[in-house]
Amino acid sequence: MLQAFEGALGRQLTGEVKECNPEILNNVIAVEQAMVKAAQEANATVINSTFHHFSPYGVSGVVVIQESHLAVHTWPEYGFATIDFFTCGEHVYPQRALNYLAKAFEGKHIDISDTLRGDTNALQEQALSDSFPYT
Amino acid sequence: MLQAFEGALGRQLTGEVKECNPEILNNVIAVEQAMVKAAQEANATVINSTFHHFSPYGVSGVVVIQESHLAVHTWPEYGFATIDFFTCGEHVYPQRALNYLAKAFEGKHIDISDTLRGDTNALQEQALSDSFPYT
Repeated sequence: MLQAFEGALGRQLTGEVKECNPEILNNVIAVEQAMVKAAQEANATVINSTFHHFSPYGVSGVVVIQESHLAVHTWPEYGFATIDFFTCGEHVYPQRALNYLAKAFEGKHIDISDTLRGDTNALQEQALSDSFPYT
Repeated sequence: MLQAFEGALGRQLTGEVKECNPEILNNVIAVEQAMVKAAQEANATVINSTFHHFSPYGVSGVVVIQESHLAVHTWPEYGFATIDFFTCGEHVYPQRALNYLAKAFEGKHIDISDTLRGDTNALQEQALSDSFPYT
């Protein structure tokens, strides 16, 4: 896979969106549409997506993107959603996706954490040959 | 959705597995099989999974489970993989999945972080009626 940044292989943004519209958070179609659009807003290439509704309330789902994944879990009864955007590659802007989703869910607050994954200074790169297994 | 623990709606374990077998990390079938088995080892209910291979090296994929999601990204050229297990519900044991995957990838080290998501003390629960939209 690509490197996210100089010195790291991946980057992970996690968001907690509060005081959202519960009806939107419970609507599996609305949540999936917002997530796919958010990935596109971040300049990510969508491969596919899979979402499901929980009983009695809530939606859970993942958009698989070429550059990694974007996941959501919602608790309408708390007006709350978690978002995870894991990305590699320099041409994806995960912050845009989180901002887009906070608006789409009509959330009043979003707390974002930003973590780099895979410190390349601590990892040893091996030169893999062209004949390396590709399965 | 369910609560993961008293006081939190979700729990997220992230793992960084080092010095893995590069051939396993580059084998999309082997990685997907290990991930599905890992979810089952954790007592999670698998809904579906989607994996793809990167050019020239690496695998990326997600297992969607009833209780949330399990994602992996691999860099065979560094012998390195990241694992994310987001779960809610009390009957899932994500640590078992991470341990299973470290062995399946023949990794020599795994660093694990454990984070609770959605502090219920800071969130306000609303009583949603039976007629609340289920879409």
